[in-house]
Amino acid sequence: MSISIPRGTQDILPGDVELWQQIEQKARELCEKYQYQEIRTPIFEHTELFSRGVGDTTDIVQKEMYTFEDRGSRSLTLRPEGTAPVVRSFVEKKMFGYAKQPVKLYYMGPMFRYERPQAGRFRQFVQFGVEALGSNDPAIDAEVISLVMNLYKEMGLKKLKLIINSLGDKESRQAHRDALIQHFQPRIGEFCSDCQKRLEKNPLRILDCKVDRDHELMESAPSILDYLNEESKVYFEKVQKYLTMLDIPFEVDSNLVRGLDYYNHTTFEVMSDAEGFGAITTLCGGGRYNGLAEELGGPETPGIGFALSIERFIAALKAEGVDTNINEGIDCYLAALGEEAKDYTVGLLQKLRLAGFSAERDYLDRKFKGQFKAADRLNARYVAILGDDELKNNIINVKNMETGEQVEVALDSFIEYFQELQQ
Amino acid sequence: MSISIPRGTQDILPGDVELWQQIEQKARELCEKYQYQEIRTPIFEHTELFSRGVGDTTDIVQKEMYTFEDRGSRSLTLRPEGTAPVVRSFVEKKMFGYAKQPVKLYYMGPMFRYERPQAGRFRQFVQFGVEALGSNDPAIDAEVISLVMNLYKEMGLKKLKLIINSLGDKESRQAHRDALIQHFQPRIGEFCSDCQKRLEKNPLRILDCKVDRDHELMESAPSILDYLNEESKVYFEKVQKYLTMLDIPFEVDSNLVRGLDYYNHTTFEVMSDAEGFGAITTLCGGGRYNGLAEELGGPETPGIGFALSIERFIAALKAEGVDTNINEGIDCYLAALGEEAKDYTVGLLQKLRLAGFSAERDYLDRKFKGQFKAADRLNARYVAILGDDELKNNIINVKNMETGEQVEVALDSFIEYFQELQQ
Repeated sequence: MSISIPRGTQDILPGDVELWQQIEQKARELCEKYQYQEIRTPIFEHTELFSRGVGDTTDIVQKEMYTFEDRGSRSLTLRPEGTAPVVRSFVEKKMFGYAKQPVKLYYMGPMFRYERPQAGRFRQFVQFGVEALGSNDPAIDAEVISLVMNLYKEMGLKKLKLIINSLGDKESRQAHRDALIQHFQPRIGEFCSDCQKRLEKNPLRILDCKVDRDHELMESAPSILDYLNEESKVYFEKVQKYLTMLDIPFEVDSNLVRGLDYYNHTTFEVMSDAEGFGAITTLCGGGRYNGLAEELGGPETPGIGFALSIERFIAALKAEGVDTNINEGIDCYLAALGEEAKDYTVGLLQKLRLAGFSAERDYLDRKFKGQFKAADRLNARYVAILGDDELKNNIINVKNMETGEQVEVALDSFIEYFQELQQ
Repeated sequence: MSISIPRGTQDILPGDVELWQQIEQKARELCEKYQYQEIRTPIFEHTELFSRGVGDTTDIVQKEMYTFEDRGSRSLTLRPEGTAPVVRSFVEKKMFGYAKQPVKLYYMGPMFRYERPQAGRFRQFVQFGVEALGSNDPAIDAEVISLVMNLYKEMGLKKLKLIINSLGDKESRQAHRDALIQHFQPRIGEFCSDCQKRLEKNPLRILDCKVDRDHELMESAPSILDYLNEESKVYFEKVQKYLTMLDIPFEVDSNLVRGLDYYNHTTFEVMSDAEGFGAITTLCGGGRYNGLAEELGGPETPGIGFALSIERFIAALKAEGVDTNINEGIDCYLAALGEEAKDYTVGLLQKLRLAGFSAERDYLDRKFKGQFKAADRLNARYVAILGDDELKNNIINVKNMETGEQVEVALDSFIEYFQELQQ
């Protein structure tokens, strides 16, 4: 009996995986230009990291985490997001003391949320994200946003919408919080039990509720933008000024709250505007989290970052019909018949590969016809043909599969011949 | 209070991560030349996959797995190795029906074993491995071995030892099994309780026991090589012939059993011979597993592969003193003073990066002196200097940090100037 893949997860197979590789490669190159360096944190962390770093009142922590005990009875959780682990590492490895500041990091890897599997939603999904820690300059907010926008653009996406908002600093948030409580309190009984709990703990979270989103009090709720103090207002204006300088169009949406507890000042989302992309249009989310390093036991440190899912990235490329076909073919297929000739190609193949070429031979004892078929399937640019007779006479026939032209070459100098062909 | 990383895991930080990237990049390039394509399977699988695919009697399944129940009460296990998941996918996705045969795959990613953490042993570690499914040609055994040997060599390792062995086909293994039982049975009471269980279930496993390895019966145990039938003998001789053709030195060691149940015919290990590498010298292990696809519910399919740990790879590079220092530096640092000039560099920086350069600016409101220090730390090849006066006069000063030479350039044509500089 066969064993199936776990529900909500997927295998990424040849034919699809090349696009993943291409996106990741592009992201790495862009990070190099922007001077973000990679960090790799473990797949699981102590559960407490996420309850503190993501927030006890979030859906992620309350409903979606893969939490288990290891054999030493420690509670571990498969990481549901990448920011808390990066900031944990920033604090633990004392990166706030690095000479190079701000510390600019990126990560790429699987995340885990126990959600109902549906189109575009997986329980294991891959995120690419960046975090810039240690700077309070609004120019770095713009840099982070421009990095993700350029990544999408360079991969060919055109139908993008950038939404930004400001949640302000502590003082502004407190004023807004008081206004929210005052707004919702009289009719909180009409809201779901989650929202009732949120009212005192984190009333901002109510605006993010999926259950009560159509309640009339939602639309009339006080906007954070009306409660920003002078400093927060100036900060947000600067971010907008820089985005304009960078030719990045955006919309301000005061309802943009983001699902994580630790955001303040700038928050943003990139959405796909492509037709038929489906209900979930968010491709990327991010924002500022100036309180997080302190929350996790480090010194007060400003931070900003984003995370995007590669799965949604690919879905957006498909929705826009971007040509993502990658089939480069191989340089040479070695076709051989006869035991000695076949044996000889074992060494010849290695030489081709070590000379830098992609090359293949038959491993199924096929006749010439079957080998030529295989060469076609691999999209081989050349086929080199060797029988026992050719071997005896120290020759090999090299066929250009595009032109059909065939040339007899001395076997000893085949590699040199092939290198010249490619120049 | 701060939260620490889980025991037995590590963060890979900038400064170290570049070597990981380099090894992975080299592995990908080599796989491209050898025509192995990437497959990505989930981080966790149904637990049954490993009890069946790795083997109930192995240490991995008995003692080392991270097994947990998800919220739907399914037993899941963080993958302890990569072969069983790849073969699970091969069967589930019906790759045995692909036109392109054999199916040649590689994987790269974290694996998990709950072991006592010690030098060079982590509970989360990264494996790179390949699997070739569908061919019974001994030339592909040699190809798989040559791929890993070339990867090590191209990264600079020299002190390598390749050990090979054959476990033969079913008939040979059965004959050897009977001989082993006969050999150990009379004195099985002197062995550990694990070995006593192994005697009937899988006596070959006794040879692999870490507890009883010095028992006198170990050395005198019947060698598999004396029980190979004619077909198995011819197969093994061919593998050796091909390795010799490929200039790959090897030793035959009939005690090489490997810790997984599903091996037959060729098995191999690559060890580091470097002084001071420590007790665990195995860098890479692999072998043939012709029965595995059938065991996992698929058709009978020959298969062979290897897996290596990147952690040990890096330890071997360090033990041999291979120069792995990678600090490429950045192309340009934009130093600016004055609010307008600083604001202007937000756009200029973006232009440099989109033109293909790695570039950086200050995000900490530093004076010129601090900015030049930062440029030094980033190993900048050029520093471009902009003050409010220069901005007014539409000029920028470009300093070559190697020669100290400084040139005044029109601000409007700075990007073009910089592009020409780099040619």
